[in-house]
This record gives sequence, C-alpha cells and structure tokens, in this order.
Amino acid sequence: MTLELEQQIKSAGGWLKKYRHQASSTGCQMRFNLFLPPQANEGNVPVLYWLSGLTCNEDNFMQKAGAHRLAAELGIALVAPDTSPRGDAGKDAQGRDIMDADRYDLGQGAGFYVNATEPSWSAHYQMYQYIVDELPALLAEHFPITDRKAIAGHSMGGHGAISIALKNPDQYASVSAFSPITNPSRVPWGETALTTYLGTDKTQWQQYDSVELLNRITDPTGYPHLLVDQGLADEFLEEQLKPQQLETAARQSDYPLTLRRHPGYDHSYYFIASFIDDHLHFHAHHLFDDPSDA
Amino acid sequence: MTLELEQQIKSAGGWLKKYRHQASSTGCQMRFNLFLPPQANEGNVPVLYWLSGLTCNEDNFMQKAGAHRLAAELGIALVAPDTSPRGDAGKDAQGRDIMDADRYDLGQGAGFYVNATEPSWSAHYQMYQYIVDELPALLAEHFPITDRKAIAGHSMGGHGAISIALKNPDQYASVSAFSPITNPSRVPWGETALTTYLGTDKTQWQQYDSVELLNRITDPTGYPHLLVDQGLADEFLEEQLKPQQLETAARQSDYPLTLRRHPGYDHSYYFIASFIDDHLHFHAHHLFDDPSDA
Repeated sequence: MTLELEQQIKSAGGWLKKYRHQASSTGCQMRFNLFLPPQANEGNVPVLYWLSGLTCNEDNFMQKAGAHRLAAELGIALVAPDTSPRGDAGKDAQGRDIMDADRYDLGQGAGFYVNATEPSWSAHYQMYQYIVDELPALLAEHFPITDRKAIAGHSMGGHGAISIALKNPDQYASVSAFSPITNPSRVPWGETALTTYLGTDKTQWQQYDSVELLNRITDPTGYPHLLVDQGLADEFLEEQLKPQQLETAARQSDYPLTLRRHPGYDHSYYFIASFIDDHLHFHAHHLFDDPSDA
Repeated sequence: MTLELEQQIKSAGGWLKKYRHQASSTGCQMRFNLFLPPQANEGNVPVLYWLSGLTCNEDNFMQKAGAHRLAAELGIALVAPDTSPRGDAGKDAQGRDIMDADRYDLGQGAGFYVNATEPSWSAHYQMYQYIVDELPALLAEHFPITDRKAIAGHSMGGHGAISIALKNPDQYASVSAFSPITNPSRVPWGETALTTYLGTDKTQWQQYDSVELLNRITDPTGYPHLLVDQGLADEFLEEQLKPQQLETAARQSDYPLTLRRHPGYDHSYYFIASFIDDHLHFHAHHLFDDPSDA
C-alpha cells in the first residue's frame, strides 16, 4: 500500500503529517492526518484514533482540539481520518450522482462509520472497514507504532468510536467520546443515515448502535473502559445524543462507563479543547499502565 | 457605545463571547472575540490583545491557538479583533469599490494596523486607532477588566503588536509576537500595504515600522519587554519577516528583546499553539508580578 505525504508540519515538538492514499475498502482516495510525538524518533508509540463528527474532515481535530501538546508529552500518536469517502465516491458504482450526497448529515462528511449495504452507497461507503481494518494495517506498515490502540471521537465520531470499540473489544485499550450519538437507531440523524446506508430493516442497524451493543453484553470483562463527556448546553443533547440511554444500558450490563455532564458547554470544538487533556490522560493510563485492560 | 453579543460559548471554565459593534474609528461594523476567564466572575482581570495575520479574522486565534486553558488558569482575558474593516468598508467614501480590496495581502483581512491616509482607504482603514483607542475604551466600559494590558500577534499582527507597543510604551505591560513582519518598509508585503494605505512618501511609513521605531529609541527604560518566536522553516522568513533586523535594532538601542529561533517550525497556527503557553506566562509575569514595567 502506497502513501503520499502531502505536507508535514512541526508541532509541539512532534510532527503533523498529512497523507493521501488509495483505499481498497472505500475504493477511493482517502486522507488522514497523523501526529507523531517526539518519542516516535526513538521507538514505537501507541496510537489514539480520533473520529470526527458531521461536516468534518481530517483537519478539524488537529487544528482545533489543542491535543498535540499533551500527546507530545505523553508519547501518544494521534490519527484523524476523514469522515467519509470524497470526490468520485459521491457517485455510485454506475457513475451516477448519489441523491442527497451534499446534505450535511448524509454522504460526504457523514459516513457514520458503517459498511453501507444499500446499492447506491455500498461501493464506497465502507468506513467501518476502513477504520477497523485498513487504516490500522496501513499505519502498522509505515510508521513507528506499537499494536496498542485507543479510540475516541465527537458526535457522529463518538458514535463511531464507541460502537467500534464495543464490536472489537480486544483491539482497543480504551475508548472515549465527546457528545456522542449513543443510540442512532432512535434519533433523527441516525435514522436518516442508517436507512440510507443499510436500508429499512432495523435489525441491521443494531450492529452499529452503541446502546443496542451494550444491551447485549452480559459480561463486560475484557471490554475497554469508556469515558464520555457531555455538555449540558449542547443544542443536540435531547434530540440526537441521549447520553441517558447509554448510561442506563451500561448500568444494566455493569459496563465500566464514566459519564461526565458539564453545565454550560455546547457541541463545539471549544468543549473538546476544554477537556481533551482528561481524555489523553485516560487513554495514556490504559495504553501504558494497564495492558491487562486490552 | 453599544455592543451586540452574537454568541457566547463556554470554554475552559470561562466564556468566549463574540461581539459586533458600530465602530467610530473605522466607520463600519466591527467584530471581536473576547475570552473571559472564570476569575472575571469574581473581579477585574487584565487583558491580552491578540492581533492576527493576513487573511485572518477574529476567530482564528480563538479556534486554533489553544490559549483558553492557560488563560483561564492564569486569569487573563484575551481579546482578538478582526484584522480589517469589512463589508461596505470595501468601498471608499463615495461608495466606489476599492480596487484590489479582494487581494489576500491588501484590503479585507489585511488592515496592517495603520491609519490610512490615502483617499480611497482613509474613510475606513483606521485600524491603528481602533486597536489603540476605541477597542480598549469599549472594553473598559463594558467588561470586568483592569487597566493592565499586554499585546501580542502573528505575522502582520506581530508587526501590529510590536509597532503599537513601541509607539505607546506606557499602555502595555509587555509585548510578544510570533513570526512578525519586523521591517515592513523594506519587504514586499509591507511595501504593498504601506504604499496603498499611506502613499509613496516613505517617511510616513517609518511611524509603523518596528525596526525604525526601535532605531529611534535611545533609552528603553519604561518600554515593555518584547518576546519574539520565529520558526526557521517559515516559508516567509527571508523575504517578509527578517527577525535579524529586529535583533540588530534592539541590540543597538539596548532594548529588552528575547528572540527565540525554532528549527523546523513553519508560519502556521501549529507553531503558535506549540509556544503560546510560553507567551501567556511571559505576559502574566508582566501583567501581575511586575507593575513597574508598565
């Protein structure tokens, strides 16, 4: 697999590297940003995957979260992939434009981290496979990283991070989210996306629904610890995010969830920047100090 | 003077407040962002003015510098004004479109922190007066701030910060810059802007040129300490920025300058985010600990 380095920028003593490559899972050019801390010059470092939310691409987290400083101190690499296929991936396998591909909550910038099965979308919208399989293999091949991984995300990306960790508990040392869509089967953003990508059979939706996945866990031993931060002035809290559903499901399955509610904070990157250090320390603890959790 | 609060966002325990107002100096609506640390709930706090560079507006610093966390800890307010008049200010006093107003290095996003005297620009492009007089008076009227001020900026904004501090040494406790345009009279960006705003008489340019202002100082007693960070992989270093000119002038006038050169760093906000904490600590020292410097 070949990688094209588009730009590299020194940051916080490490390097932000911007890559492009032809992805087999999504059948198109994909971009991701990788932050390598200075410790990567001396040896292998663990990786925190960051999944962004609706309308974002690979840049938002790197530009706005303020995560480089502490990641450089802790010795953790950060990888932020794009949130969907782009470009020609807005067309289906027959080259026809996909209707609604320019909506903010569907299509480009809104891959929802699922493997699409509906014919118009299945050729390219395989973001689950890209994040879980292809990108980790690519990183392992090209960069000085260990096999220790953690995963985090915001909003749609919080949904992605939690659902991916719950489906692959042996792959991630820890998982965290800001303002996640916890129960996509039952909220407007999720219903729109899951109907479009997976069709109307709601039983197919459950494999990507964090609340449904939690409900099926009878013994959380070996699953990664989950940290969730939610702002209480978040304009999407009641209609789209529903952290109480996650909390209830985690309690019933005795899942190790820490859910923090923050008065006054909204859905923006200012909220993420306010608490990203806590998430980095949380992941560092599990990535470095407690390998039994993996 | 009336202020319109457009949005407020909780951040790092404080509040980012986005304001709009009709400015008398520039004769148009101006926007600025104000970060108030939590200490502003209890009493008055000092203010660090941040002047951004070419193409920027009032948002870039707040979104990308990662400054809120430490400003909240130190108890310093941050104010980031826009970098030029906008909107109808792209027309002259007769309502005619100003030629070249859409260039990236002239007109909107490129006010250069001078008071324009050329007829096409003088009606609105009075950014020096806006930053030095109008905005401080507005803030003092409306917010819980002390009269202790510091000033900092990036690139064109570094030029603005240093030249403004050197022209008003009793107004600022300290001054700092990232990658400043130090000698605008003698570099392409500056020559373009100063010719356009001030005309071809270069003696008029010197009042806004930091190197020229430094050359005139015979006794730096009472002037604010100056901290400058410069990346050595900065693509504009040789042609536009010329920190060595600043260094030479400061040495000749015995000016208290700390100039740090950083291998590998470029001109971007990643460079700013990498060292902004040092600047905040520097300003905190002068704002809080050493009032005699003011």
